[in-house]
Amino acid sequence: MSVMKTLTKADYIEGILSGNTVVLSRAITLLESTRDDHQALARLVLEDLLPFTGKSKRIGITGVPGVGKSTFIEAIGEKLIGEKLKLAILAVDPSSQLSKGSILGDKTRMENLVGNPRVYIRPSSAGEALGGVSRRTRETIMLCEAAGYDYVIVETVGVGQSEVAVHSMVDSFILLMLPGAGDELQGIKRGIMEMADIIAINKAYEDDELKIKAKQAMQEIKNALHYYPQKEFSWLTKVKAVDALSGIQLDNLLESVMQFFDHQNLKSYFTERRKMQDLYWFDESIKQQLLYKFYQDVEVKKEVSRLRAALLQGKISSFKAADELLNYRYK
Amino acid sequence: MSVMKTLTKADYIEGILSGNTVVLSRAITLLESTRDDHQALARLVLEDLLPFTGKSKRIGITGVPGVGKSTFIEAIGEKLIGEKLKLAILAVDPSSQLSKGSILGDKTRMENLVGNPRVYIRPSSAGEALGGVSRRTRETIMLCEAAGYDYVIVETVGVGQSEVAVHSMVDSFILLMLPGAGDELQGIKRGIMEMADIIAINKAYEDDELKIKAKQAMQEIKNALHYYPQKEFSWLTKVKAVDALSGIQLDNLLESVMQFFDHQNLKSYFTERRKMQDLYWFDESIKQQLLYKFYQDVEVKKEVSRLRAALLQGKISSFKAADELLNYRYK
Repeated sequence: MSVMKTLTKADYIEGILSGNTVVLSRAITLLESTRDDHQALARLVLEDLLPFTGKSKRIGITGVPGVGKSTFIEAIGEKLIGEKLKLAILAVDPSSQLSKGSILGDKTRMENLVGNPRVYIRPSSAGEALGGVSRRTRETIMLCEAAGYDYVIVETVGVGQSEVAVHSMVDSFILLMLPGAGDELQGIKRGIMEMADIIAINKAYEDDELKIKAKQAMQEIKNALHYYPQKEFSWLTKVKAVDALSGIQLDNLLESVMQFFDHQNLKSYFTERRKMQDLYWFDESIKQQLLYKFYQDVEVKKEVSRLRAALLQGKISSFKAADELLNYRYK
Repeated sequence: MSVMKTLTKADYIEGILSGNTVVLSRAITLLESTRDDHQALARLVLEDLLPFTGKSKRIGITGVPGVGKSTFIEAIGEKLIGEKLKLAILAVDPSSQLSKGSILGDKTRMENLVGNPRVYIRPSSAGEALGGVSRRTRETIMLCEAAGYDYVIVETVGVGQSEVAVHSMVDSFILLMLPGAGDELQGIKRGIMEMADIIAINKAYEDDELKIKAKQAMQEIKNALHYYPQKEFSWLTKVKAVDALSGIQLDNLLESVMQFFDHQNLKSYFTERRKMQDLYWFDESIKQQLLYKFYQDVEVKKEVSRLRAALLQGKISSFKAADELLNYRYK
């Protein structure tokens, strides 16, 4: 099949279901396209593939740039493919200016996984709006599931709102941190720590100083976790020290990941979380699209500018301004 | 003036500007009314009073039931009225079933302030939706400002989403906690600690055991704060131990509150925060009303039920369901 050939809906479906990664990649590109006809076709493909989705284990992995996410994913990946499992890796926003590394840009990343037939790596380009990015990411996960991947790993850079979106589309969420729990960690944005099912202090065994720091960090993190509300489905966040590069304590960490999935399978927590996520994305999509449609109107845009200026000059209250805008639109 | 007399817009405005608390109370009742004509009149009154609002210092105070919020507010209140300042106290959701105490129900609360001509106490009944409650609360603050109160204290019970709303309508936010930083504190909902400008461990000097526990709690809280992002306007959250009932360290705490306001006045942080809040409430009101109008439609409600069921049965994707609903509505 030529790469340039236009694929039909049937081509996409057949290709994806047979695990053809070229077709899978083209389907993701179709999803990411802003062209209306591409979007429409992608939607049709996805709807037909729906019965074949939902069967992977989805892991979100986040952490600040430099924490060692790709080394970590590589280490996990090698374990999984050693057990004959298939693994898809999606990177959200790798081209962010905040991140120094990028899967595309940095050829040395995950070199032990690249080219392995059990592994599919897809960097998602950073989209305009968060909504757009996460929408495509969630649909990309579903395509990977239809293509037969047992695990889907979604990487984010731990510096923004995208973690909230990713958290609501994965089954487990792992936060990587560095030893030395002080100022370095200020980069972790609000709420990320409390979303984590597992927190791993990476590079914890590189030298004696880091060992001590990692131990302190673990204690401080455990203390900090006391101030968070109990997690959903009565899971207690695990805090582990590892060194992904040398592999020290990696088995221990992976065991925690598997324990988490075992815990989820108890009392069908797994299915329940997925259902909650489906409803969340249903509501979220409606909200986003309603607001989008509303603010898209050129006249509304003008009114918003005028009202914001009046607001900042104290000439009108926020609520009156909102009423005026809505009355203006729906008059 | 008879209480039963119907007040005109001019009556309301004159009464409030002259600091008449009977008229102020009736204006707040008007705001809280669900009748359309009441709402419309309240809105007109508020718009005319707009130039006289915005001049108070607004303090949000939160903490779990039993932490001693009313004792604390009473202690602060006595200090302020001692300096000839006027003080309005608004309690959000005091009748919540989660809270054992209620300003209305419990006559012993703030007995040293009740009846003082410099103090106005208004319990807000718990409304249906968060939006409704907070909308009225913010407008109530504005009415109190027009009535000449120097400080407006807004109390919340620290167990829910209302803190987020209140945080976005006050100038400073104080979280009260109990000594003993462990399980007792699990009641504090996500995000509340990081919103606090000042955290006060109350009942910290009641006995030797509590003294030790308070010290530990302060240390743990300070450690936990390391994991939060830097606060807006480069303020470092203060953590203080006090005993509001006996007054131990209360001056020290009040000094922190004043330091906070001094800090805010530097570089016009105060005005800036208020402007950010105005824009936030403008956006928030539009969002709430758009969603409200959309979901109010009986046909939309039916479609939502049908689509949610299809979603939970895996028959449709979240995004397709959202598209169908929006297309259905805007066909």
